[in-house]
Amino acid sequence: MSAPILNERDLDFMLYELFDVESMTSRPRFADHNRETFSGAVTTAKTIAEKVFLPMRAKADRIEPTFDGEKVELIPELKTALDAVVESGLASAGADYEMGGMQLPYVVECAATSYLSAAGGTTINYTCMTTSNANLIEAHGTQEQIDKWVVPMREGRFAGTMAMTEPSAGSGLADLTTSAVKESDGSYRITGNKIFTSGGDHELNENIVHLVLARVKDAPKGIKGISLFIVPKFLVNDDGSLGDRNDVALAGVFHKMGGRAQTTTALSFGENDGAMGYLVGEENRGLSYMFHMMNEARIMAGISSSILGLTAFQYSLDYAKERPQGRLLSEKDPLSAPVNIIQHPDVRRMLLLQKAYAEGAMALSLFGAKLVDDEATAETEEQKQAAKTLLDFLTPIIKAWPAEYCLKANKHAIQVLGGHGYINEHPVEFFYRENRANSIHEGTTGIQSLDLLGRKVPYNGFAGYQACLDEITKTIEFAKDIDSLRDYADELSNALATLKKTTETVLTATQSMSVDAAFCNSVKYLEMFGHIVIAWLWLKQGVVAEAALADGAHEEDEKFYRGKLHTLKYFYGHELPEVYRWADILTRLDTVNYDMQPDWF
Amino acid sequence: MSAPILNERDLDFMLYELFDVESMTSRPRFADHNRETFSGAVTTAKTIAEKVFLPMRAKADRIEPTFDGEKVELIPELKTALDAVVESGLASAGADYEMGGMQLPYVVECAATSYLSAAGGTTINYTCMTTSNANLIEAHGTQEQIDKWVVPMREGRFAGTMAMTEPSAGSGLADLTTSAVKESDGSYRITGNKIFTSGGDHELNENIVHLVLARVKDAPKGIKGISLFIVPKFLVNDDGSLGDRNDVALAGVFHKMGGRAQTTTALSFGENDGAMGYLVGEENRGLSYMFHMMNEARIMAGISSSILGLTAFQYSLDYAKERPQGRLLSEKDPLSAPVNIIQHPDVRRMLLLQKAYAEGAMALSLFGAKLVDDEATAETEEQKQAAKTLLDFLTPIIKAWPAEYCLKANKHAIQVLGGHGYINEHPVEFFYRENRANSIHEGTTGIQSLDLLGRKVPYNGFAGYQACLDEITKTIEFAKDIDSLRDYADELSNALATLKKTTETVLTATQSMSVDAAFCNSVKYLEMFGHIVIAWLWLKQGVVAEAALADGAHEEDEKFYRGKLHTLKYFYGHELPEVYRWADILTRLDTVNYDMQPDWF
Repeated sequence: MSAPILNERDLDFMLYELFDVESMTSRPRFADHNRETFSGAVTTAKTIAEKVFLPMRAKADRIEPTFDGEKVELIPELKTALDAVVESGLASAGADYEMGGMQLPYVVECAATSYLSAAGGTTINYTCMTTSNANLIEAHGTQEQIDKWVVPMREGRFAGTMAMTEPSAGSGLADLTTSAVKESDGSYRITGNKIFTSGGDHELNENIVHLVLARVKDAPKGIKGISLFIVPKFLVNDDGSLGDRNDVALAGVFHKMGGRAQTTTALSFGENDGAMGYLVGEENRGLSYMFHMMNEARIMAGISSSILGLTAFQYSLDYAKERPQGRLLSEKDPLSAPVNIIQHPDVRRMLLLQKAYAEGAMALSLFGAKLVDDEATAETEEQKQAAKTLLDFLTPIIKAWPAEYCLKANKHAIQVLGGHGYINEHPVEFFYRENRANSIHEGTTGIQSLDLLGRKVPYNGFAGYQACLDEITKTIEFAKDIDSLRDYADELSNALATLKKTTETVLTATQSMSVDAAFCNSVKYLEMFGHIVIAWLWLKQGVVAEAALADGAHEEDEKFYRGKLHTLKYFYGHELPEVYRWADILTRLDTVNYDMQPDWF
Repeated sequence: MSAPILNERDLDFMLYELFDVESMTSRPRFADHNRETFSGAVTTAKTIAEKVFLPMRAKADRIEPTFDGEKVELIPELKTALDAVVESGLASAGADYEMGGMQLPYVVECAATSYLSAAGGTTINYTCMTTSNANLIEAHGTQEQIDKWVVPMREGRFAGTMAMTEPSAGSGLADLTTSAVKESDGSYRITGNKIFTSGGDHELNENIVHLVLARVKDAPKGIKGISLFIVPKFLVNDDGSLGDRNDVALAGVFHKMGGRAQTTTALSFGENDGAMGYLVGEENRGLSYMFHMMNEARIMAGISSSILGLTAFQYSLDYAKERPQGRLLSEKDPLSAPVNIIQHPDVRRMLLLQKAYAEGAMALSLFGAKLVDDEATAETEEQKQAAKTLLDFLTPIIKAWPAEYCLKANKHAIQVLGGHGYINEHPVEFFYRENRANSIHEGTTGIQSLDLLGRKVPYNGFAGYQACLDEITKTIEFAKDIDSLRDYADELSNALATLKKTTETVLTATQSMSVDAAFCNSVKYLEMFGHIVIAWLWLKQGVVAEAALADGAHEEDEKFYRGKLHTLKYFYGHELPEVYRWADILTRLDTVNYDMQPDWF
């Protein structure tokens, strides 16, 4: 098998043709960059992915992290792989020059990371979590905290985590009970238990910086009384050297369906005297800081889901091209040679579905990443605000749609390989197991759907909702002038009208019925919106492909663009019509889910 | 957690209320039986499941079978569990008295096995495969073969397998190359390689009886030249004692995503002098004998898929009832106590979906099992033939629909548990991994869909197709007279009309276009037919529930029947309308799958 980790041509298409990332080099922050430096970063990641990540992927999955009561045991290849990333500079690709970074746009950083994520599963998450942690402290911490914690994280010496979930609270952050007591020196003593902390303990780095949500004594109850603390594994002296071990203990590691390269831990803070913690920003504002990190993590979840969709698609495509088996139904001669399975229409269906979902999801996720850049570096304040408005709105869709649909794509990648897809000689079952986490962590699909319908849609006078619709309408108007795309533009326009009507019906319903009943199909609303957004991104890809073909693309490129247009056709013929089924359930205000009684099950 | 393995009330409902299994006791073969003996068998299975299977399920999953070059190493608990089944008599529950069996109806045997399957994953498959193997030899072998191989299999001393798939042929049986050369004594020497042979080697039994497909020298090419052989691991002397080791070698064991209790092997036949093999029936008729076993295996696959759907549903239901987390949207007081998650409408949605899929699939699978009984033991030849016609027709749907939709149910069981669903402290991720195989083995969903559309529908002047439609229409007519069910009856009637039109359009199309193109949405056709059949079975359940409520069911029972009726409502509101979307793709003869070119991907 010689399947590429990712389709390089497609990644280039997304970056340079669909989203014109090169144009960002006109912004001061990226002034030193050009397409070559962008591609250089991606190529570096690809090289590391092929040389160091890919060879250890199966082993990291097979040999789970173990805890002997003293420390976490990981396979040594993980450290080698992560060290290679740090040495290459990619670990702080987006950070400021003065922090040792490369000042690459976030969207390019995501594209580069994609190779590492595809080739090594959750391995690269150690680095990504550290970067997110460092970004948060850089944004909300003091200069002293930046010097003490961010600098060594950027250098790859320290790792970072986000310790949020508690055993009895789960996604219900309002109910967390970890407590913080202020000491006379201004530090705090933290006591409580956290679970599902990714990378919560290991020996990969000198030190681990936990960002911990906790309640200061006498703080308001609920989400208004949550503060954020830096709680290191080892205390750090003023000269930067490591001090004593902090009162943070590993209570256990979880054994997971997938994502095994990354340790997932239960942590116990303050079993003895209380763990030393340092307040980030102000008391009781912890959740808003954490959401800074969480929104970034939600974009990353979209990217990760998409990448797993893409890499599994490449693998099953390669398999389908090379594996002879069976004959076409039309073959009259039962003794003719078997055909490669890509000749079977049903195998093509399973590949088209994967391509449509995974490339659509990747376009959405990279669009989200570009909005992160625009929010930070666009030319005018107005443009920055517009990017923020759109990104905030799209975040639940970016988090949830790729997670749901690329998982479905992965299920089909297994199916293309048949029995071979079920055994670990091939990585497709691994991709499925890996991806299964993505519709759960950083807020489940159900939570995202309520965030979308209940918060993001009506927020600020429907500003984000309208911005999203405007963006889609722009593409529709443009595509209407292209003969071959006019029908798609009309179909998307109809779907959009249905979406508007659905939104109005559901939101109006809350005036006359319980919001629990009115929103009981919120996941269908998210799927509906997601399908329309993805249909929009496929139309956008179609516009680019048609333009390139009109310009006279050379032979290999012509096939590539034809593939894009054919997948557009697939999405509009087989997927977009789903929207009407969901709209029907939503607009008739079906409450079958809400009405079901627990003791009827 | 105290989740029941299965919902006993529902199993009773299916057996005694929905399918009136008790009425079979009027048939001579089951004359000694009554509801008590039926329930006794199920209770025995349940006891063994709870005492011996459940405690070792996680361990059998964690510690995969290994091959040290000499033999297969399994955890000892497996043998204990399987021995308990043999000792209880359940291993030959359906066999003749004279073969040491209980002569239980197949449908009761399936219900009993359900507990073992739910509690032990693929563990019980060693027994099921052995039974299928024995049934085949009993049906097509000589008396000598029955005495030599079937008797010890019924006694639990020997195990049986089906060695069919070859590395280069996969599902394309026409291309298998394992060869058989006839010796002067009438036996054959078998040479070739098989993969994915379940239970292909282990030390659980004294001997293993492989049923091997192979080509006799100079046989016709393709599927017309395939014969079936008994190829034992150890030769057996005429007095029944074990002789020399046969020339069958274990080449390796596969490491699978799930189903790890059962060894899946690569076997090498005749590496030295050729393995001794004994022809079953006549030369070149092997495939038809094997399909006898395969069709049974396809019903079993339907049952297994359904069981995994049901048991995961029970587990996630129990979790949802006990786990407090979050508040309802309508809750004005953010400091109120968290509710149990079953109060969240989206959690109810995920539970309803599971209930609708899994109980619908189980009803279908048990209906199939009952048809197996009817084919063998119905009063008249005409009734037997009618059962055979309907069963043959439904087999691809029984094989594929539960596998696809109960897998989807399992995906949602994980989601109900959130992060806890992704770790192996809870078995829901295990159920998913276990179930993922079911849409692959014994013919993939794609293969089933072509079998349905290309063969089963037009077969014998549309006899099976018509029989199925008649059966559905009967229920529609009955339900039309019940006020609360009339709308459902109408909806099913409309769906049926659409199905007829779709069938006609697609089959007519083959006259004017390539069959490859015309059938390129065959999986959608199978899903459409499957959804209609499941909708029919939900309506049937609704009829029974309404009658019971009209009779004045007592309190607990009333809730049970209300739950059935509400799930019926869910299926007709949220699932059945899918049919029209699939019909649209099929009737417009959409060829986007067929048209996609391999080099456009």
